[in-house]
Amino acid sequence: MRRIDYVPGTEYRIIQDKSLFSYGIDAILLSSFGRPKGVVVDLGTGTGLIPLRIVDKKEVSFVYGVEIQSQVASMAEESIKLNSLQDRIGILHADMKKLSGIFSKASVDTVITNPPYMKSGGAIINKEDNFAISRHEIAATLEDIAAVSEYLLKPLGKLYMVHRPNRLVDVLCTLRGHGLEPKYIQWVYPKPGKQPNLFLLEAVKGGKSDFKYREPILVYNQDGSYTDKIYEIYGMKR
Amino acid sequence: MRRIDYVPGTEYRIIQDKSLFSYGIDAILLSSFGRPKGVVVDLGTGTGLIPLRIVDKKEVSFVYGVEIQSQVASMAEESIKLNSLQDRIGILHADMKKLSGIFSKASVDTVITNPPYMKSGGAIINKEDNFAISRHEIAATLEDIAAVSEYLLKPLGKLYMVHRPNRLVDVLCTLRGHGLEPKYIQWVYPKPGKQPNLFLLEAVKGGKSDFKYREPILVYNQDGSYTDKIYEIYGMKR
Repeated sequence: MRRIDYVPGTEYRIIQDKSLFSYGIDAILLSSFGRPKGVVVDLGTGTGLIPLRIVDKKEVSFVYGVEIQSQVASMAEESIKLNSLQDRIGILHADMKKLSGIFSKASVDTVITNPPYMKSGGAIINKEDNFAISRHEIAATLEDIAAVSEYLLKPLGKLYMVHRPNRLVDVLCTLRGHGLEPKYIQWVYPKPGKQPNLFLLEAVKGGKSDFKYREPILVYNQDGSYTDKIYEIYGMKR
Repeated sequence: MRRIDYVPGTEYRIIQDKSLFSYGIDAILLSSFGRPKGVVVDLGTGTGLIPLRIVDKKEVSFVYGVEIQSQVASMAEESIKLNSLQDRIGILHADMKKLSGIFSKASVDTVITNPPYMKSGGAIINKEDNFAISRHEIAATLEDIAAVSEYLLKPLGKLYMVHRPNRLVDVLCTLRGHGLEPKYIQWVYPKPGKQPNLFLLEAVKGGKSDFKYREPILVYNQDGSYTDKIYEIYGMKR
């Protein structure tokens, strides 16, 4: 079922289709994390939520959204047209592993990615399944993402990523292995007293080893209401 | 000033000398973390606190404490004699980088270490300074510790370590680089609402990638009193 929503915190609109793909809080949190600037590439952009959330930031000059799933990329493309943002956002229906044919090496200031969280493992997964591609490392693994980010980023360029705590070691070591030094982490807690269920990470290409922790984000108060921080991130009034 | 203290949570006694070395809460927390078993090696044992804290665990057969600083190793040795534990704890005055002359490869079940936290960097440090050796990576780096642990441990043998959050990436990636897969982390928070200032880590030699989080430890309550968890770990009655 296709529908048109507002992009939280903006005046832009976004075409969504729950049967194909819909963004989650992860993408919202990621698009409010760090300071994207210059030429930005969003790896696995889905319906283009992250480009639409960050395009108005003063330091951002152009945002590319890369999406391998053709129907999803088409929806993102339509949303960009709907908002007349073709001169500031470009949707590339492409495999991120083949971006060296499109971008020069070290030509990008910022990479953002909300990647599939789960290893594909041995399970048989329908490769036509859009949800599976978004959730499992079928079309791209962490290794692929780190390799393409290393290729794309300028020296000291930044990578912003959201991922699951059970993949922390994989994320940190894979990035470092590609010269992308993890610098800041921000844990996301669903509720007070629970373990974090997401983390946001900033890595710097060629950065020095020095790992820091930002104030954690709490999503729900004990009573089940959203915290002020979440209202602020969504750009909602209480 | 030399003095004799009780080892928290035990009936054993330990010789301490604040002008040479004194153990911290880090070593206490580490000795209550995980399940050391079989032949255990404590790398950088200081005055032997960790061996004395774990020697009575049912599954522990023998504990070696390795200490490079001769005066500190002598104090540890004296404490072992004072408690008549020579048949269950051995203090080795040795450089951990040269343990291959003492232990066979893959002969140890558990390695424990409370290592120096700080990189030695470019600062000029007095190499005779016992405190500096305990705090800075002068006599042994993370890389050395990982290499010797890899050598010592049997397949699926466990490494237990305490370290500082700003070294998290270094710790995780150095261990993984030596086939010691990080499996569990436990954050230690000084107070509610503060960032953690320590973490406890379990790594398994040849383990599979799967990173989990234990319930964090809180040291002080908001009012400055110790938490029940700390009383429990120290084996103190309230």
